[in-house]
Amino acid sequence: MIIELKNNVSEARAQELAQELKAFCIHYDGRYTLITSSSVKELEAKYHSDADRITVLNDDMQLSSRAWKQETRTIDINGVKIGGSTNHTLLIAGPCSVESEEQIEQSATLLKELGISTLRAGAFKPRTSPYTFQGMGLDGLKLLKKMREKYGFNIITEVRDATQVEDIIEYSDIIQIGAKSMYDHGILKRCGKTQKPVLIKRGFGTTLQEFLQCAEFVLAGGNPNVILCERGIRTFETKTRFTLDLCGAAWMKEYSNLPIILDPSHAIGYAYGVPDLARACTAMGVDGLLIEVHPNPKVAKSDASQQLNHDQFRELTGSLKKVAEAIGRKII
Amino acid sequence: MIIELKNNVSEARAQELAQELKAFCIHYDGRYTLITSSSVKELEAKYHSDADRITVLNDDMQLSSRAWKQETRTIDINGVKIGGSTNHTLLIAGPCSVESEEQIEQSATLLKELGISTLRAGAFKPRTSPYTFQGMGLDGLKLLKKMREKYGFNIITEVRDATQVEDIIEYSDIIQIGAKSMYDHGILKRCGKTQKPVLIKRGFGTTLQEFLQCAEFVLAGGNPNVILCERGIRTFETKTRFTLDLCGAAWMKEYSNLPIILDPSHAIGYAYGVPDLARACTAMGVDGLLIEVHPNPKVAKSDASQQLNHDQFRELTGSLKKVAEAIGRKII
Amino acid sequence: MIIELKNNVSEARAQELAQELKAFCIHYDGRYTLITSSSVKELEAKYHSDADRITVLNDDMQLSSRAWKQETRTIDINGVKIGGSTNHTLLIAGPCSVESEEQIEQSATLLKELGISTLRAGAFKPRTSPYTFQGMGLDGLKLLKKMREKYGFNIITEVRDATQVEDIIEYSDIIQIGAKSMYDHGILKRCGKTQKPVLIKRGFGTTLQEFLQCAEFVLAGGNPNVILCERGIRTFETKTRFTLDLCGAAWMKEYSNLPIILDPSHAIGYAYGVPDLARACTAMGVDGLLIEVHPNPKVAKSDASQQLNHDQFRELTGSLKKVAEAIGRKII
Amino acid sequence: MIIELKNNVSEARAQELAQELKAFCIHYDGRYTLITSSSVKELEAKYHSDADRITVLNDDMQLSSRAWKQETRTIDINGVKIGGSTNHTLLIAGPCSVESEEQIEQSATLLKELGISTLRAGAFKPRTSPYTFQGMGLDGLKLLKKMREKYGFNIITEVRDATQVEDIIEYSDIIQIGAKSMYDHGILKRCGKTQKPVLIKRGFGTTLQEFLQCAEFVLAGGNPNVILCERGIRTFETKTRFTLDLCGAAWMKEYSNLPIILDPSHAIGYAYGVPDLARACTAMGVDGLLIEVHPNPKVAKSDASQQLNHDQFRELTGSLKKVAEAIGRKII
Repeated sequence: MIIELKNNVSEARAQELAQELKAFCIHYDGRYTLITSSSVKELEAKYHSDADRITVLNDDMQLSSRAWKQETRTIDINGVKIGGSTNHTLLIAGPCSVESEEQIEQSATLLKELGISTLRAGAFKPRTSPYTFQGMGLDGLKLLKKMREKYGFNIITEVRDATQVEDIIEYSDIIQIGAKSMYDHGILKRCGKTQKPVLIKRGFGTTLQEFLQCAEFVLAGGNPNVILCERGIRTFETKTRFTLDLCGAAWMKEYSNLPIILDPSHAIGYAYGVPDLARACTAMGVDGLLIEVHPNPKVAKSDASQQLNHDQFRELTGSLKKVAEAIGRKII
Repeated sequence: MIIELKNNVSEARAQELAQELKAFCIHYDGRYTLITSSSVKELEAKYHSDADRITVLNDDMQLSSRAWKQETRTIDINGVKIGGSTNHTLLIAGPCSVESEEQIEQSATLLKELGISTLRAGAFKPRTSPYTFQGMGLDGLKLLKKMREKYGFNIITEVRDATQVEDIIEYSDIIQIGAKSMYDHGILKRCGKTQKPVLIKRGFGTTLQEFLQCAEFVLAGGNPNVILCERGIRTFETKTRFTLDLCGAAWMKEYSNLPIILDPSHAIGYAYGVPDLARACTAMGVDGLLIEVHPNPKVAKSDASQQLNHDQFRELTGSLKKVAEAIGRKII
Repeated sequence: MIIELKNNVSEARAQELAQELKAFCIHYDGRYTLITSSSVKELEAKYHSDADRITVLNDDMQLSSRAWKQETRTIDINGVKIGGSTNHTLLIAGPCSVESEEQIEQSATLLKELGISTLRAGAFKPRTSPYTFQGMGLDGLKLLKKMREKYGFNIITEVRDATQVEDIIEYSDIIQIGAKSMYDHGILKRCGKTQKPVLIKRGFGTTLQEFLQCAEFVLAGGNPNVILCERGIRTFETKTRFTLDLCGAAWMKEYSNLPIILDPSHAIGYAYGVPDLARACTAMGVDGLLIEVHPNPKVAKSDASQQLNHDQFRELTGSLKKVAEAIGRKII
Repeated sequence: MIIELKNNVSEARAQELAQELKAFCIHYDGRYTLITSSSVKELEAKYHSDADRITVLNDDMQLSSRAWKQETRTIDINGVKIGGSTNHTLLIAGPCSVESEEQIEQSATLLKELGISTLRAGAFKPRTSPYTFQGMGLDGLKLLKKMREKYGFNIITEVRDATQVEDIIEYSDIIQIGAKSMYDHGILKRCGKTQKPVLIKRGFGTTLQEFLQCAEFVLAGGNPNVILCERGIRTFETKTRFTLDLCGAAWMKEYSNLPIILDPSHAIGYAYGVPDLARACTAMGVDGLLIEVHPNPKVAKSDASQQLNHDQFRELTGSLKKVAEAIGRKII
């Protein structure tokens, strides 16, 4: 149950009520709001005088649901806006990993050339084997910071586990919680305490219900700026690396108030299919795309097979704009 | 191994060779062609004088592969062409099932109004329960025939099992082999003996490799006119009915020479997501779409939740045209 | 809804009622029984005088459910009984395919030596590629018949598609409907008209609900002798061929009144794991096991990797008996 | 590649070699051993004089593979031994969560009565919703410690994220890394630095290859005491909560040298199936079982539906002993 308190209810009173009701308490849209378990279906009469609006929900997808807030949330990333009524499709691009200053500078130059505002690259890589490249770590974050300062990008980079969450919050403009970390309470709870936008990637074995409930950890913690990212689920099909779940994206558009970003590169895992899939994602009318592009994919230290080269990416960008226009949206 | 015989090799000689090599023998593109198991990697020297071109393949995806024929096949459905260099995206629409003359006539009128050439509707329904509507059977086929005669449509309808394959071949312009029947040798082999186009739907538990191998049964049987249809696979996600595998569609575009049609209606199973998904499918640059539309979805006897109503479908058609144009294709 | 009519209701009256209620009519346990869709929740008062017992069900798993008949059905296969209160675990063994008289005779001799009553072997193989061994067909069935006549076995063999269902019914003692054919209405409906036991294998992409509903086609058609067989479902894991669903087996034991047989050979697809899995299956307390054994697995024409050799099978049989005893059952 | 150095190679030299070869360096079985990426297939001649044995491996499943060490590892948990040649099947039991002193004491008493040495219970629960019971945290760990001191149990409890890993290491005898945390590098790397046994649960969307590679993080970090736990994977089937992958267990027995424990309770998610599945797991000949039992399952704060009550568990224990005996093993 979500209880939006009256505007004149003080923080102290709100906290008191939260304790009595075993509820989370957030300050949102100018007033205090309490969230209890969705199993609570009725509010005692004595609390009614403090409540402005009560929303009873079917399940624990609460703050993220359109059943509570019909309109899609607007997320402001240092002035770049997505969601709401913007009709923006944010193109986020960059290499899988920061590998060197030269490499990330080449990526930055490409993005600048194409007018792209948001640079992605991983510094802490959640590899499944200990014997492969694990990312540049803090040095990678520093290179990303340098690119931001030089070119004015927003930076999105991934937190792998709770031990580096503080660094990621400091160095990024959008905190990315990866598919393998999205159940991590340590990360989720910490991200609830900042106001920086958080992009959560759906785990490849995660149901939509669980995915939205992970977002609830951040939202109920007090951070309203959560973006959902579908990046492919694991199915029986192995010709492609994962299966991009656009039916799931349609479901999220219908039932959730959070902006949605799609990642075709990780989904298919092979560059040959990325352009067609990126166009399909754009035609879905979602709020953004994450695409991997590398100055020289063949020598990439991670995910070599799925990264586009610069020429492929230039060509793709042009066609994405046309598809976006065809459905009344704009690539930013 | 595929052995294209020289143009002057006679049918008798081709059949003789087929027997010696335990190969299938088809007449394709003006000459006889033999297909052995892909485990055969070398052709004895004594046969070389009959052979014009030999293609050794990695696996039993042979006649359907771009490794053998680079260009996409052109399929001619009574003058309506898809594949090849047409840049056509064929829009196929209609109700899940033929339910009555009045209903199918309403569907026909809508298609006529929108300039759509191909009507879909099922007469033999492969329901998973014996206690639900099983389709109108032969009476349904006769109604479809009536619509063809009155409006000039091409008709596509599904064969459920081998007992009605002759009827379906007689009454349809495109034979649809359903997701639950696609391993049926009785149907596949019979369809290899006609020249009518055959649309095979991928089973929801079927790998891409197996799917293409099912197509090989028809192709090796002598019918070159096979269309692949992806309609959603079964995954752990149950908020939607199935998961439309567009990564798989990208793989098929890359590796197969058969035209591809996508069916967003069966994939998601809910009308709310069909328009977005249909636009995504169109943006993939595939050869066609199958969309379910019903005069009054609420009273539909099968798949009520996923069928668009006529107004929704009219609106969708307009936007599909724009998306197709944006990528240089044309909805037909 | 299942309506068991009073014992004195005549066939003519039962058929009349079936027509009025759009119900299936079977003769079971000495009286006529009608089965309507499970969406029917109430029976009109005027029919109450004919009805002895009315069972309202949640879904279309009706005749197969313990909600209707609590006790497991007893199936009598020419005097060999499973299910009911027998505590029998029927061991069915034999090669994947009949390949030659010599080979099947070797298999028969092994079974005879070990006191096994039921011989399995395929004659019509539902291969996924047209370019591989498709089975011996009718000649294979004749060899199986020969083994039955010589050694007194019960024979179980698979119907691949509706075109050979008559032959299979004639030549087998248990009709096997394979995983790829279990949605085939042509086969299911035909099997409803015989009284021979029918073993239905769960499709690898089939839910338990759908699986039971396939059984309903046979049961509602009038054949009460249906056996369920779990043989592995398709999951994301590819180190093994399929994933044996013993959780599903536990569910079927709890909710269905049909005997259950497990097939560890097809599930894992590799001989190394078959003994451990066969012991696990036995410890589940199910009604039978299907195990593939071949005189010389290396040269087997199908499923070579998963078949045990004769020595491995002899050893396994001994340990299965001990495991069965430990839980109060008997391998027959 | 695994390079076992000669017994006389010093730590300093081993570390020097590790740096040159970009290898992990562990001390195992009385000598230093280096592990490089499995992509390294040849060792330069100049290093041969330091090496005693070189094992080239196909993939990054290295220290955990039988290709390197044929025999199963023996794990000693404060004198309780599993694996190796023990033929022990360790029965681990207890409630899903510590809920109160009274509750955990009741569980402890039951285990004591039945001679069970290892108590399981969660203090930090990796719930998928923020609005449900999250576990007692540190207070729960303290109650577990009390039970150990009073009854002499070994305690196994779960680390949820890297923020509480130190506490878990301190309070437990076996560190449990849960299915949702098994990709967590922060946890895995920290567990590599202790010598306490670590039980890693397979993620429900995790391939066997990835699962073993997670174990490699701990093994290559220097802790040889890793136990694998299969607890059900997520498939399309939803009648049961997960699908216990016994084919995967068979594969792990064949290819890995790590002891294997199975968890039927989490797999099926319903108490009705746990006894049959537990017997099946025992018959697989694995090294242990994890079973949930609660003094009063109906009021359990988490996983209420899957926990056995005390009487059910007593009865089960008796039958597990018989099944174990039937295959020459002993429940401890």
